Amino acid sequence: MTDGHLDVVGIGNAIVDVLAQADDGFLSKHDLPKGGMTLIDENQAEALYGKMGPGVECSGGSAANTVAGVAALGGRAGFVGKVRDDQLGTVFAHDLRALGVEFDTLPADDGASTARCLVLVTPDAQRTMSTYLGACVSLGPDDVDDRQVARAQVTYLEGYLWDPAQAKQAFRKAMTVAHDAGRKVALSLSDPFCVDRYREEFVELAEHQVDILFANEAEITSLYQAADFDEALQHVRGHCEIAVLTRGDKGSVVVSGDELHVIDPEPLSNLVDTTGAGDLFAAGFLAGLTQGRDLHDCGRMGSIAAAEVISHFGARPEADLKALMADKLGS
Amino acid sequence: MTDGHLDVVGIGNAIVDVLAQADDGFLSKHDLPKGGMTLIDENQAEALYGKMGPGVECSGGSAANTVAGVAALGGRAGFVGKVRDDQLGTVFAHDLRALGVEFDTLPADDGASTARCLVLVTPDAQRTMSTYLGACVSLGPDDVDDRQVARAQVTYLEGYLWDPAQAKQAFRKAMTVAHDAGRKVALSLSDPFCVDRYREEFVELAEHQVDILFANEAEITSLYQAADFDEALQHVRGHCEIAVLTRGDKGSVVVSGDELHVIDPEPLSNLVDTTGAGDLFAAGFLAGLTQGRDLHDCGRMGSIAAAEVISHFGARPEADLKALMADKLGS
Repeated sequence: MTDGHLDVVGIGNAIVDVLAQADDGFLSKHDLPKGGMTLIDENQAEALYGKMGPGVECSGGSAANTVAGVAALGGRAGFVGKVRDDQLGTVFAHDLRALGVEFDTLPADDGASTARCLVLVTPDAQRTMSTYLGACVSLGPDDVDDRQVARAQVTYLEGYLWDPAQAKQAFRKAMTVAHDAGRKVALSLSDPFCVDRYREEFVELAEHQVDILFANEAEITSLYQAADFDEALQHVRGHCEIAVLTRGDKGSVVVSGDELHVIDPEPLSNLVDTTGAGDLFAAGFLAGLTQGRDLHDCGRMGSIAAAEVISHFGARPEADLKALMADKLGS
Repeated sequence: MTDGHLDVVGIGNAIVDVLAQADDGFLSKHDLPKGGMTLIDENQAEALYGKMGPGVECSGGSAANTVAGVAALGGRAGFVGKVRDDQLGTVFAHDLRALGVEFDTLPADDGASTARCLVLVTPDAQRTMSTYLGACVSLGPDDVDDRQVARAQVTYLEGYLWDPAQAKQAFRKAMTVAHDAGRKVALSLSDPFCVDRYREEFVELAEHQVDILFANEAEITSLYQAADFDEALQHVRGHCEIAVLTRGDKGSVVVSGDELHVIDPEPLSNLVDTTGAGDLFAAGFLAGLTQGRDLHDCGRMGSIAAAEVISHFGARPEADLKALMADKLGS
């Protein structure tokens, strides 16, 4: 389990999602910004949970969803993130390991319980998240195993790691180790609210540290406080080796030096829950990239994986992603 | 919460389901009888969980699924069942209370953890269950509140209650209280393997104690060790006030004295996971019965609720069942 090559190692918040249906009235009554991610404390989490409808629990966490997708696509993946040694922590660890993801971070044996994200899905399939970070706040640089990071072609980091106090040190350590080993660093901007909280640092990261940047339209325009998508695109171009910009039902754009690919969205038969769309886009893209595919195919693989995850509840793939890719890409 | 009329109070094992996809090879490798429910101990549960694919956690439990369905259909429902004061116990209680189900059984504060049912769903949508009863084994007669049972038009019991040691005492107490209060007692035979374990007692119950019997074809033929469905039907006729016999894609039959209704199955667009089919059939039927509908309509409500629950993963309804009934039954 602890040697050999890895395609992607993800570092992120280790979270179990609690998905429930809600209407727009519920969101406004509880001051939840639709489509966003709000951080809440344990008391707020209990109060909101008590008011939510019946739920379904699925492992989540942005970078964890991405490495789960990479593994489901046949890639070799690892994950670093902190759970507590409780029932939900056991669920989280099981769901990664069952996919073959190398997950060796020690669970916390005291302190806050495993993180939960209360995901409210409205009838328009939009998801609104309220996250109690729980045990994630104890993730620190000691949890990053230099050898594991050095073994991975790509180290993938979620912007949300800026929220828990010590995690950004783990994040910075991993970037240094990866670059020292001649590896690539990828970052997802996570959420426009997250970009608002840490804009200066994220701009610095995007321009100087990150090789592969993932962002959706709202995040990239927020990052550069740009008037529109095209203006943001011109900003990011040239800074990162690769920028992967998703635009929901308008498809996606992949930029790398002089190359620019505009990729159509996958046709969708059944939009149910957008939770995990960006995470699985990144999974498909990185699986393609680490398999040596060209950027257009990487983008298509992202679109296909994202389309699968939004056709059902929950942020982890349900269909056989490898078979889906073979069917859609013919290989 | 603790007075006023109730339509249905359910007594059953309080279980959280862990659903995962598996193929037939996995079932045979682990000696799991397809379509059945096998009781396992904690060590077996850990070993099987470690080998299963990634899962989704949903509240389950047969009678609990039924009262959840009754509540989703606008009925007033209560539940008696034992969880531990742990994370999965909190999930179980939340998911019932969020539907308005009165659930006041004290959680155990020591001993085994909340029960889990490992549900393996094969590509043919059949489910195969392995249940670790956990805290359910401490359910006893003291957990049955006489006043709650007396307030309910129907007390609904699952045959699985015969498995944990003291639960059958709770079961017998509830039957006596219900009948003393002039109320009806309903029983689901749960599972053909369960019928095998307790045939003599179940025959005695069906013939002398139970007013409304729910069984599927395999269970009712096993109960009477009958050669076929029709022979079993002739046995049950006359014993119970109402017998509700489900036959999967062949529909269902409702028998009451001289009345016999043969009800067509609901057309199905998407069969995904049969978990909860019988539980939700009972929910629809009992919701109709306690609303004063005729037996044919009760059977149709059962079919409609069952068809909804097998169109997605998990044993609790996802769609708005009230709206679905209004749409299908025109009221």
